[in-house]
Amino acid sequence: MNAPDKFQQLLTLTREPFPASRKGYIQGSRPDLRVPVRDVTLTNDEVVSLYDTSGPYTDPDAPIDVRQGLPTVREGWIDERGDTERYAGRIAHILDDGGKHEKRDLPRIEQLRREAAGLQRQPRRARGGVGGGNVTQMHYARKGIVTPEMEYIALRENGRREWIAAYLNDESRERRLAGNPLGASMAQRITPEFVRDEVARGRAVIPANINHPEIEPMVIGRNFLVKINANIGNSAVTSSIEEEVEKLVWSIRWGADTVMDLSTGKNIHTTRDWIIRNSPVPIGTVPIYQALEKVGGIAEDLTWEIFRDTLIEQAEQGVDYFTIHAGVRLPFIHLTVPRRTGIVSRGGSIMAKWCIAHHKESFLYTHFEDICDIMKAYDVAFSLGDGLRPGSCADANDEAQFAELRTLGELTQIAWKHDVQTMIEGPGHVPMHLIQANMDEQLKHCGEAPFYTLGPLTIDVSPGYDHIASAIGAAMIGWMGTAMLCYVTPKEHLGLPDRNDVKQGMIAYKIAAHAADVAKGHPGARARDDALSQARFEFRWYDQFNLSLDPDTAREFHDETLPRESSKSAHFCSMCGPKFCSMKITQEVRDFAAAKGLSEADALQAGMAEKSRQFQAGGGQVYIPIQKNG
Amino acid sequence: MNAPDKFQQLLTLTREPFPASRKGYIQGSRPDLRVPVRDVTLTNDEVVSLYDTSGPYTDPDAPIDVRQGLPTVREGWIDERGDTERYAGRIAHILDDGGKHEKRDLPRIEQLRREAAGLQRQPRRARGGVGGGNVTQMHYARKGIVTPEMEYIALRENGRREWIAAYLNDESRERRLAGNPLGASMAQRITPEFVRDEVARGRAVIPANINHPEIEPMVIGRNFLVKINANIGNSAVTSSIEEEVEKLVWSIRWGADTVMDLSTGKNIHTTRDWIIRNSPVPIGTVPIYQALEKVGGIAEDLTWEIFRDTLIEQAEQGVDYFTIHAGVRLPFIHLTVPRRTGIVSRGGSIMAKWCIAHHKESFLYTHFEDICDIMKAYDVAFSLGDGLRPGSCADANDEAQFAELRTLGELTQIAWKHDVQTMIEGPGHVPMHLIQANMDEQLKHCGEAPFYTLGPLTIDVSPGYDHIASAIGAAMIGWMGTAMLCYVTPKEHLGLPDRNDVKQGMIAYKIAAHAADVAKGHPGARARDDALSQARFEFRWYDQFNLSLDPDTAREFHDETLPRESSKSAHFCSMCGPKFCSMKITQEVRDFAAAKGLSEADALQAGMAEKSRQFQAGGGQVYIPIQKNG
Repeated sequence: MNAPDKFQQLLTLTREPFPASRKGYIQGSRPDLRVPVRDVTLTNDEVVSLYDTSGPYTDPDAPIDVRQGLPTVREGWIDERGDTERYAGRIAHILDDGGKHEKRDLPRIEQLRREAAGLQRQPRRARGGVGGGNVTQMHYARKGIVTPEMEYIALRENGRREWIAAYLNDESRERRLAGNPLGASMAQRITPEFVRDEVARGRAVIPANINHPEIEPMVIGRNFLVKINANIGNSAVTSSIEEEVEKLVWSIRWGADTVMDLSTGKNIHTTRDWIIRNSPVPIGTVPIYQALEKVGGIAEDLTWEIFRDTLIEQAEQGVDYFTIHAGVRLPFIHLTVPRRTGIVSRGGSIMAKWCIAHHKESFLYTHFEDICDIMKAYDVAFSLGDGLRPGSCADANDEAQFAELRTLGELTQIAWKHDVQTMIEGPGHVPMHLIQANMDEQLKHCGEAPFYTLGPLTIDVSPGYDHIASAIGAAMIGWMGTAMLCYVTPKEHLGLPDRNDVKQGMIAYKIAAHAADVAKGHPGARARDDALSQARFEFRWYDQFNLSLDPDTAREFHDETLPRESSKSAHFCSMCGPKFCSMKITQEVRDFAAAKGLSEADALQAGMAEKSRQFQAGGGQVYIPIQKNG
Repeated sequence: MNAPDKFQQLLTLTREPFPASRKGYIQGSRPDLRVPVRDVTLTNDEVVSLYDTSGPYTDPDAPIDVRQGLPTVREGWIDERGDTERYAGRIAHILDDGGKHEKRDLPRIEQLRREAAGLQRQPRRARGGVGGGNVTQMHYARKGIVTPEMEYIALRENGRREWIAAYLNDESRERRLAGNPLGASMAQRITPEFVRDEVARGRAVIPANINHPEIEPMVIGRNFLVKINANIGNSAVTSSIEEEVEKLVWSIRWGADTVMDLSTGKNIHTTRDWIIRNSPVPIGTVPIYQALEKVGGIAEDLTWEIFRDTLIEQAEQGVDYFTIHAGVRLPFIHLTVPRRTGIVSRGGSIMAKWCIAHHKESFLYTHFEDICDIMKAYDVAFSLGDGLRPGSCADANDEAQFAELRTLGELTQIAWKHDVQTMIEGPGHVPMHLIQANMDEQLKHCGEAPFYTLGPLTIDVSPGYDHIASAIGAAMIGWMGTAMLCYVTPKEHLGLPDRNDVKQGMIAYKIAAHAADVAKGHPGARARDDALSQARFEFRWYDQFNLSLDPDTAREFHDETLPRESSKSAHFCSMCGPKFCSMKITQEVRDFAAAKGLSEADALQAGMAEKSRQFQAGGGQVYIPIQKNG
């Protein structure tokens, strides 16, 4: 089957809207500022509006051609600012897609590039170029400018507050359930000015490369909804471009707020063109992976020049944030020797090997300000990598990890000096009782720059289920203040995630992120739970399915026990059966109170008296002769 | 296929030992006191010994005939105490298995009972009978008697400390990872006297009905390993006896420490015979369920006499703990009216309906001391039910819930006055930031009686994945001091769990319980993580699989990406591929330090110098012409 057909087939799987859902838009202050939401219509005609990361793919009216890429949401805004210029751009090299054996690979690469021809764009950069201009959202924010991106984000974080208000209408309940933000400053209503201020002080990041105008802007920060990243990418061992784009569309369908392309094999450059041009969410990469491919996988052959060229290459394509392991410093490497599992970060070990080979300080560290110059010319955000993160609970919170974290704090100050947006990556494997210390140290040393953690996994003995072991740590650290959670799939430590693994990882992390939002008391986070609980209590089965994180699975599980259509409106479930249902009894108590229109307590007294009479009449016959024993 | 064959077929599925595992025994102070463990032999001939709940089923040498029941572990100990008597016992009634339509059901019931003939035992009770004797473990403990059950438990909680010691040999690491018990008193080594003391003060429960001599004794208490309960049971809607026994064997295979039989349909009595006689773990029930069946499902027809008779019936069969919803008091019921989801506990709503119908205080509350008399004559432990637990996050920690909890505290004092073992059931649905308050209130009002919680679920929007949403809450509250976690399966709120759902729920809860043990700093809990991490670091793939909570799935996932046998010993994985592996680089750094026999820091310096030379020789050719761009 040729590629286009394959795409059609794959995309039909992921383009169908969720049940009872349609794409809605919140209109901003200008015609070209429309924030997408997923409006779910319930069987009682209520409309519940949900944050929507799925992009145009779930809009049946949106024409999609993966060979041309998505429409550009931000083009006009970037043009208006008038501080960027189009330019020829770096000359693509065969090696960008290559690995070493150029001759043999030539036909494949040519073919790939022909297919990707429709995705080529002339790059933009800041007027004045690298070392000259600065087009970061942080730069604007600090100049007091509220960008359309910031307004977009404010509308997106608020969502449609009307339906939410309907569920948060009981003061005593709201007092009881008011979250515990643990030091976060959750605003009751997010204003564009609030977004600007958070970005200006470095507490929030808006990943938005000027060469990625297709994104629907989103924010990563402690005082906003907790976000989720999904990793995709081919590897030396397996996978194809088609699969990678499909994985992208599949992960944003299930709620990925950003996606990292961790490709390490061949076709890296072209794969990235396909992913970025078709992605409505910010894309992150680990540039050292491609740089390593360019030197045939020999870490010690890496040079600053090769790395720098790779940063430019990827910045021109539109990557929104770079993971840079500049905290893996020469003097820290020996700290990993006594560890149970040494260095487990791929980027970290690449740099460790380079430092050892040359007995020199890392070029990422020594050239950090040169990197800042590149970041600000395209507005690429830093995701300062934790190359020395623990790979087992036994290594959690050790000196190697915290020495690197303190260094990431220093680097954050340097990045901010250049108005470059920055977030900090965190572990990894951490037992529950050591999680708080990770958040405390990060807040203490990194000036509240957004924390972006991988889990953490709370135990090591759950291969095959690490999405669960890590969702526990992710929910806790999300509550404590982590701004974005990097998902873990069931295949972690064992293999490469397939389509279903990606979904399982996404759902586990949506659970963790939502649990954190509810605990922090994000205004309105809990309304969806209330809407679903209300539906559950009223036996509106379809509404219960459609409000859940995975409507298909919820319905499928219900069908396994009670497949008949009738049971979808039945006032009972398989747990207690038709003869008896606790929810029904509660309803009886309540209906009675309502009917009498008395105060609850009085109603109940009256109710008891009346029901008492009524049931005595019915009389409770006892069916067995009581045996008196012991 | 007739029943016996079906059993053979079912049991072959669940009787095969785990890979590389064999049943071992820790010998106690007397020949008939042997504590089972699962000894896993690693590829480096190390033997890792694990807590084993699977009973004789995973011992290939143990002859098993589900129609005769398991061998009795405790018979001799009970006899020796000489404080019990055999007696005729209550006369079984057709209605015990019946529901209302006795005539029609007669043949079926007769047939069932014939099949279960080999499982009938003459019951025991305390000398002096109900209201006379007292044979509870708490009664012995308070008289200063250390029972064989207590010694058994001490050996079981310690496990084989030799292999554990090998992993906990790094003082600086142990200091860093020492758990945070949050007020628990974890002993470094559990002695029989420690167990006695914990039971005497009510801080631990040993569910061990004198009519259930088949159990391998276990303890439920804050200062021991966190335990897990699995629920099974047929319902009005579906399922058969064979399936129930198989579900029992299946859940203990995956680590269930106790099992609750929540059967609500027909054949309740006989199903229970089959489950108890074939169970090496304590069995809990909710007697009000069977009592309700006896009155044809009409809650208001329940009477103290029917309920009392049901308690005797089940105590004689050997049920180890009863869930009794004596805290659902008349004055509390109206507190549920303003709730989002009212009363969701089945037992709680049965009693609420009864109270309303008769406008009377609950007979469970008014007859509580009569119930205590029954409990102590058989040593059945109380599990005081939380009939008013929240059914949604919106109802968490409300007045109805806490009013009941305070009442459970009063009842605990009454039970303890009778030396009756008691634990307290807890929610339910609770957002993360309200979980600590549940533990605090329970400790404050219930005198440290073991807390036994259902999850809690931290959000409501995850039907189909509630095992994950609740594992988050379970891990947290387990760390805070909950002694036993009642599992939740993916089918929660949607349907009845099948074989795979039971397994998924069990694994999620093993993760939560183990995460809690590690965080509390249970001595040795972390050793299994260290053993697996070590295997992972050394690319001992089979050891990694075999030490995991689910070896089959771990291996299967690895095979999906790298099926070849060779890759099981390969020093790389599918994440980075053969060309590059971070674990290998760490090993290089370490090997070098070791070889030189220098201090780590020195070794590294030297290593850098040498590697530096060596790699310069190799020379790092750069493959691309660098383009200088803006």
